[in-house]
Amino acid sequence: MLLETIQNPADLKKLTPEQLPDLAEEIRSFLLSTVSETGGHLGSNLGAVELSLALHYCFSTPQDKIVWDVGHQAYTHKLLTGRRDRFATQRQYKGISGFPKRCESEHDAFGVGHASTSISAALGMAVADNLDQKKNNVIAVIGDGSLTGGIAFEGLNQAGHLKKNLIVVLNDNEMSISKNVGAFSAFVSRKMTTRHFRELKKEMKELLTSIPAFGKDILKFARRAENSLKGFLTPGALFEALGFDYIGPIDGHDLPGLIEVFNNAREFDGPLLLHVMTTKGKGYRPAEETPDKFHGVGAFDLSTGKAPAKSSTISYTEVFGRTLVDLAKEDPKVVAITAAMPDGTGLNFFSDALPDRFFDVGIAEQHGICFAAGLAADGFKPVAAIYSSFMQRAYDQVFHDVCLQNLPVVIAMDRAGLVGDDGPTHHGVFDLSFMRHLPGLTFMAPKDENELRHMLKTALELKAPVALRYPRGAGYGVPLDKKMECLPIGKGELLREGTDLTIVAIGSTVMPAVKAAEQLAEQGISAGVVNARFIKPLDADLILGQARATGRIVTVEENVLQGGFGSAVLELLQDNAMSQVKVKRLGIPDQYIEQGTQAQLRKDVGIDADGIAAAVQAFLKN
Amino acid sequence: MLLETIQNPADLKKLTPEQLPDLAEEIRSFLLSTVSETGGHLGSNLGAVELSLALHYCFSTPQDKIVWDVGHQAYTHKLLTGRRDRFATQRQYKGISGFPKRCESEHDAFGVGHASTSISAALGMAVADNLDQKKNNVIAVIGDGSLTGGIAFEGLNQAGHLKKNLIVVLNDNEMSISKNVGAFSAFVSRKMTTRHFRELKKEMKELLTSIPAFGKDILKFARRAENSLKGFLTPGALFEALGFDYIGPIDGHDLPGLIEVFNNAREFDGPLLLHVMTTKGKGYRPAEETPDKFHGVGAFDLSTGKAPAKSSTISYTEVFGRTLVDLAKEDPKVVAITAAMPDGTGLNFFSDALPDRFFDVGIAEQHGICFAAGLAADGFKPVAAIYSSFMQRAYDQVFHDVCLQNLPVVIAMDRAGLVGDDGPTHHGVFDLSFMRHLPGLTFMAPKDENELRHMLKTALELKAPVALRYPRGAGYGVPLDKKMECLPIGKGELLREGTDLTIVAIGSTVMPAVKAAEQLAEQGISAGVVNARFIKPLDADLILGQARATGRIVTVEENVLQGGFGSAVLELLQDNAMSQVKVKRLGIPDQYIEQGTQAQLRKDVGIDADGIAAAVQAFLKN
Repeated sequence: MLLETIQNPADLKKLTPEQLPDLAEEIRSFLLSTVSETGGHLGSNLGAVELSLALHYCFSTPQDKIVWDVGHQAYTHKLLTGRRDRFATQRQYKGISGFPKRCESEHDAFGVGHASTSISAALGMAVADNLDQKKNNVIAVIGDGSLTGGIAFEGLNQAGHLKKNLIVVLNDNEMSISKNVGAFSAFVSRKMTTRHFRELKKEMKELLTSIPAFGKDILKFARRAENSLKGFLTPGALFEALGFDYIGPIDGHDLPGLIEVFNNAREFDGPLLLHVMTTKGKGYRPAEETPDKFHGVGAFDLSTGKAPAKSSTISYTEVFGRTLVDLAKEDPKVVAITAAMPDGTGLNFFSDALPDRFFDVGIAEQHGICFAAGLAADGFKPVAAIYSSFMQRAYDQVFHDVCLQNLPVVIAMDRAGLVGDDGPTHHGVFDLSFMRHLPGLTFMAPKDENELRHMLKTALELKAPVALRYPRGAGYGVPLDKKMECLPIGKGELLREGTDLTIVAIGSTVMPAVKAAEQLAEQGISAGVVNARFIKPLDADLILGQARATGRIVTVEENVLQGGFGSAVLELLQDNAMSQVKVKRLGIPDQYIEQGTQAQLRKDVGIDADGIAAAVQAFLKN
Repeated sequence: MLLETIQNPADLKKLTPEQLPDLAEEIRSFLLSTVSETGGHLGSNLGAVELSLALHYCFSTPQDKIVWDVGHQAYTHKLLTGRRDRFATQRQYKGISGFPKRCESEHDAFGVGHASTSISAALGMAVADNLDQKKNNVIAVIGDGSLTGGIAFEGLNQAGHLKKNLIVVLNDNEMSISKNVGAFSAFVSRKMTTRHFRELKKEMKELLTSIPAFGKDILKFARRAENSLKGFLTPGALFEALGFDYIGPIDGHDLPGLIEVFNNAREFDGPLLLHVMTTKGKGYRPAEETPDKFHGVGAFDLSTGKAPAKSSTISYTEVFGRTLVDLAKEDPKVVAITAAMPDGTGLNFFSDALPDRFFDVGIAEQHGICFAAGLAADGFKPVAAIYSSFMQRAYDQVFHDVCLQNLPVVIAMDRAGLVGDDGPTHHGVFDLSFMRHLPGLTFMAPKDENELRHMLKTALELKAPVALRYPRGAGYGVPLDKKMECLPIGKGELLREGTDLTIVAIGSTVMPAVKAAEQLAEQGISAGVVNARFIKPLDADLILGQARATGRIVTVEENVLQGGFGSAVLELLQDNAMSQVKVKRLGIPDQYIEQGTQAQLRKDVGIDADGIAAAVQAFLKN
């Protein structure tokens, strides 16, 4: 086995070029056998095996720097940089990350997880190395999907202007997480024609027809002219217009070709774009044939490509998606927006049922929210479904375009709270803190998947900005009410009376709080439980009433403790001069939480039922 | 006077085309006489007079919708849509806004203030109108500077893909707020040539030289071919590649020409880009000659173009800019980054003194912060100076690229707090709430301009992510220490001892708190004052010590009360089980604050010295 001989990129360089295709096959087998057990980002990683091998064969990290955009294609890089032995722990609790991470290896030049940052970060490094008069290379590896993110364009724009040595490898598989959208992507994939080109071709044809025999020179010229014109119509023209030199398209599975191009690129001066074509899922037929199914996978059966039978409990995502279809069928003004995540957000149900009212804006959360605001300004009821962690990209749009104008956009944040194996870049643990202070926003979180249905109905009827957060994964399997009703705004519910204290919980922590109260009851502690439902406006009557009645409040949230739900309760008590009430806040501490199962991580931070019960006991003792 | 006859766009349409140039001149005079008294965005508005007239002459708002990007060019639009009488109140307390605003007029289709949103919002409206089967037009008017913002690209990308009826007017004055940066802007301004074009031209020349006389047909063809090729090299090629039809360049001061183009555009199907060339400051020589000085102006002398003698008190902005130069001269690793605001942030001093280490990324805050992270990852100490309100665009980058990786980027937020006449889009009143929860961030605010110097030194020495916020406008005129010293991290200072209560203030509210304490002393109330200096980490010892000593804490901040500094103090007290301490929080209430002078607005929200003193008295009475 060649792979076993490679502890670092220097070992790779000892191989002959002829040995590399065998190594590529070994890596594919390794990735398939590991990822089929651990889950992970499979398709894009299978597509980037040769690309990664060639990069490390030609460049020398850590002196040269490779910045992997998003990190969905860095598994081969991890195998080549000393992490093969630990690779089976990737995305596991206390294992290595599924993404590049600076603290994990000196070969990981930049940490990622969110899309479209690689050009900006690499440009920073290129400028730094230039200031230091270093002669090394900096390479950003970015997929065609990530290019739809505005920050990537901002980075290209400055890179073309600064003219520093920077290599951008466009890893083009004509497919990001789902089917690419946008004119730019069609352009990059060379599917476009332009009016000018058509007209000029017509004109040339007419000319050549009208003048029977100018000899071979004019024909040669015509052919060259046409070829040059075609140059203008490939991505080359665009990237050259932006100040890059362009080489491509390059076969991303042809190792000798890649090595030749990269060796030439090493000596190149100025910004250079290498357009590499790869096949997502390369080498594993099920992944090549249904790439969208193999972008991110759980464990699966390698021989069939099938995932094990799913949990029979329906996910929040699916409840959201199906409920939105139900509501949209009744109200023609409801439209749905995703930022390149139709399946992940459950909007695939909407796009199937109501394709005319479904909009995939690409990996472009900023535009997605502002686009929604435009729709709302014109009388529609847009629902933008975006993961909590990715909504961080659109904070200013939620402020400037939605809330400040009081426009009825519904922001549906899936993956709120601890998301599990994707780790700190993906945990949605800040949204309560970065959104609740926006004036005019109503902000809800359901205790279970059935309440999510009613909240979505409520949000769509409110005629004002609404945010809604709900967790990744399965619901509780509770019965789903057929008829949806509007919840009273700013009203929580008292789920359980108690005399010793009241646990005030929000969203995913409500049911654990109920369970904790049941455990506490067995120990003779009488804990009330409030399902707050609304982070904003808070149910002042209910919470203050409970505070007066029991004198002790424990808040629980799946969000950071700084500025979150518990802080809102502290503010409420202070506003009402109720400082005699004793409060304990439970939630995510002031640190980044690594990956692990959701259950493990919730246990670690003490917001599962056992953790809540233990915290209550400790609180009562003091 | 024609202008006086126009109460709304319908009145404008009663004029003959021949009358419009006279109206344009009247509008210029009106704008000059008003803005020279009130201040405002002058240059871009003078440049857009004919453009605005022609748009309203050809289109019919509010059925047709015009979305003005940023809003720096909408004064003529305001004059034509019923706000002439109130125009002198623009940017004044309780007057009309300096920006388009939905609640102000049905002709303001979308509110703005931040750049680059118009295409996204207009696309939302175009889609909405299309779903409603309306036949109206939607027009986004965007400057060349705003096109550098990633969200504009995200919007173009989807617009070209969706193929709905949308008109984008590119108002190209080759100058945004300061000199445009970026390859894209050079491209749009047609300054670029490409390799292909040069080669093809050379080839053509050779061919035509080698074949002496092919007759007029080949020459005609050659000329046409060259013209067509030029088409590929103008912005037309780029926008056509993105799915737009392109018309331009159009003289933006030629009313008949504009009217013809807009009338044709009304009937056009699909996305259309009209490239209009305008001159910033048109018609007022001082503004034409020094457009950067007349982008945003205060009151000035119309005959000379000169502003009245400035306050002799140096601004925070200037102290920041000059201090950074001092520090960077001592440390070659310090680099400075602005997002198209070198003058506004005081980095003009840096760009003059150390141009090789100065980077203007364009209106691209996301990229700016990620670019800074790249520099930091490679051993540099980047300082990104961005207005607080615009930093909202880069929240995710502060999280994902800076804090999560613990990279030593210094985020210097000018215009934190209430900014005055620019109003709610520009107030920097959320940063304490949207940033302090990020793990690993150190967050400071100086009590005066001298402390700002020490804090900047401290930030640069910390080797970890730091945010720094300071207000718009003049400092206190305090002496500036020559030698800068590192402040102890997480330590505040007790400025005044008190026995009845302690006022714990941060940043711009510290000196007012001191003044309030002096006033209170005259009334026999003994108020201590703490300058917290750090929002994060809080000085727990000092604050808890004061809480124990006086039993009463009043917090003051120029930030929203939800999740801000006061909430951090509440959290601290709760974490330490000190709920017996009585707390009152002063700051910005949960609503949007309109424009006015900073003094007026601070008085309104009760965070000036009088307001603090009054609040303390009321607090002690309860």
